[in-house]
Amino acid sequence: MTVNHQWLLASRPETAISVANFVQASSELAEPRDGQVVVRVTHIAYEPAMRGWVREVPGQGSNVKLGGVMRSQGAGEVIASRHPGFKAGDRVTGFFGWQQYAVVDVAGELLPLRTLADGVTEEMALSVLGITGLTAYFGMLDVGRPKAGDTVVVSGAAGATGSIAGQLARISGCRVIGIAGGADKCRWLVEDAGFADAIDYKAGDVSAQLKRLCPGGIDVFYDNVGGEILEAALDNIALGSRIVICGGISGYNVADGEWPGPRNYMRIVNSPSTMSGFLLGQFTARFPEAWDRLGAWTRDGRIRIAVDVQEGFENVPATLMRLFNGQNLGKQLCRIA
Amino acid sequence: MTVNHQWLLASRPETAISVANFVQASSELAEPRDGQVVVRVTHIAYEPAMRGWVREVPGQGSNVKLGGVMRSQGAGEVIASRHPGFKAGDRVTGFFGWQQYAVVDVAGELLPLRTLADGVTEEMALSVLGITGLTAYFGMLDVGRPKAGDTVVVSGAAGATGSIAGQLARISGCRVIGIAGGADKCRWLVEDAGFADAIDYKAGDVSAQLKRLCPGGIDVFYDNVGGEILEAALDNIALGSRIVICGGISGYNVADGEWPGPRNYMRIVNSPSTMSGFLLGQFTARFPEAWDRLGAWTRDGRIRIAVDVQEGFENVPATLMRLFNGQNLGKQLCRIA
Repeated sequence: MTVNHQWLLASRPETAISVANFVQASSELAEPRDGQVVVRVTHIAYEPAMRGWVREVPGQGSNVKLGGVMRSQGAGEVIASRHPGFKAGDRVTGFFGWQQYAVVDVAGELLPLRTLADGVTEEMALSVLGITGLTAYFGMLDVGRPKAGDTVVVSGAAGATGSIAGQLARISGCRVIGIAGGADKCRWLVEDAGFADAIDYKAGDVSAQLKRLCPGGIDVFYDNVGGEILEAALDNIALGSRIVICGGISGYNVADGEWPGPRNYMRIVNSPSTMSGFLLGQFTARFPEAWDRLGAWTRDGRIRIAVDVQEGFENVPATLMRLFNGQNLGKQLCRIA
Repeated sequence: MTVNHQWLLASRPETAISVANFVQASSELAEPRDGQVVVRVTHIAYEPAMRGWVREVPGQGSNVKLGGVMRSQGAGEVIASRHPGFKAGDRVTGFFGWQQYAVVDVAGELLPLRTLADGVTEEMALSVLGITGLTAYFGMLDVGRPKAGDTVVVSGAAGATGSIAGQLARISGCRVIGIAGGADKCRWLVEDAGFADAIDYKAGDVSAQLKRLCPGGIDVFYDNVGGEILEAALDNIALGSRIVICGGISGYNVADGEWPGPRNYMRIVNSPSTMSGFLLGQFTARFPEAWDRLGAWTRDGRIRIAVDVQEGFENVPATLMRLFNGQNLGKQLCRIA
């Protein structure tokens, strides 16, 4: 028998999520049924959305159950297969959770199990070709609709989604400005990722810096942060702007009902604009298009990816905290095997 | 010489607007130049937007100046004309301000000077065919895009814009629910204006009432109120909903920067939706289309209009307060001659 070490959700955070919300456990690895494969997990991927996955959603069974294995995307190697499309030794990505082994249906949650093509690393598969890259692709190109010559601003720009979203706007012919925390991240944005400029929100008045850098106003604002950063962007929108709400990480760790709403939301009336949300699940039929284009742009160097790889199964919950502390540059991963 | 009595903006309100912000004055009526007409004002019209017109807007000269005549739309009679398109005795609407006589350019502010057609009353011209009717027309039909069968919710539904917006959604084949303050307004919405149902926000939990009346969610929310009413609607939006921000009267009387933002704005992500603002000025080229259709629907009884007419030049500032106290049912007017 194979012992499978796992991290379970022990309690739901009321405000800030912490390692104390998770507990380690082990169980005997189940046998796969017909149509399932067994994966030895090598990499775990992290998303800000995980903060939402551990909330209690009344009347909705989709979130992680108390005592259940924490949900996550990951990469690994097939060690047994009862599905004709997969064989032992295949490198794959899917939703494997915080555990050493996963017995999964090929249809998967949100994303089906996928084999990594030759030349595609686990880091690529979990960043530009994973949830975050797909989110950036549809959020920026379909919801933000950047036109050549537009001024585009991305918050959380050094994060996994923001860094791809900004580069997609650059590829669309836009002047792209990133907002990130710290000089290192800002330097990476300009020197590596090809952003026209970067604003360090830790260095002072974001609204004033946006005003200086975007004298004609912001045509597309892609927001991963919310709070004061969203308000600073709203202060500077151009007429007809598109505000894409991808995330709001500044508010994820506050209690329900305490989330700060943008006090200047009426700016979308004074400078007639549109604020839109989206879910990746709306675009599943077009994932192959996105994978093709994101893969090609990454191979030809037009998209640069950044990954922050931590090590060790014991560090799996602690690595999640790096997202909320703003420590990661690019996609946050933990290698566990 | 003709003495022209006027109400001037004496001070800018810091929070709530009051009659103390205005002062009465008189001056000699100026002679019209070529292209101008002189109007004896009979009716003054009120809009929530007036609260914005008395704010100081740095670097923008469009708002009412301290010591200047308060801006407003009105109706009146031409008493002298130096423009070939107008003659003494014509009944007209335009931006005449809070004064007994106005010397105006025919091009006007926002709306040009218009002659009232036979059968069009001053009340009709200033409500369904005035700013508020045009705002409802483009805000609901172009921005909200209601489809037959949609569930549409309008806040400030017994107000001048809300009542027209809701009726336009009904004409589009939607089930329309109004939110208004008090049993009288709610009765008018259902019994006269043909709303499917009405929620009295003074009678308790708006979110729970919306949940009960909109089990499939809200497809279009047309907001004139903001604050807790907007949050209650966001709690209940359907996937793919359109949220039209027309106004936010609940916040107009608070100090700058204290405006409450919708704390649950991330509902537009969880239930992917779009929140849009608009300005009437975007649609000026299509005003004739709107006048034709609004006029026809009013004549055939499909649109019912409500007007609240106060009396007397001395009551001109006090009548404005009725809007912010929620006393008006339908369009707020003051007859001064």
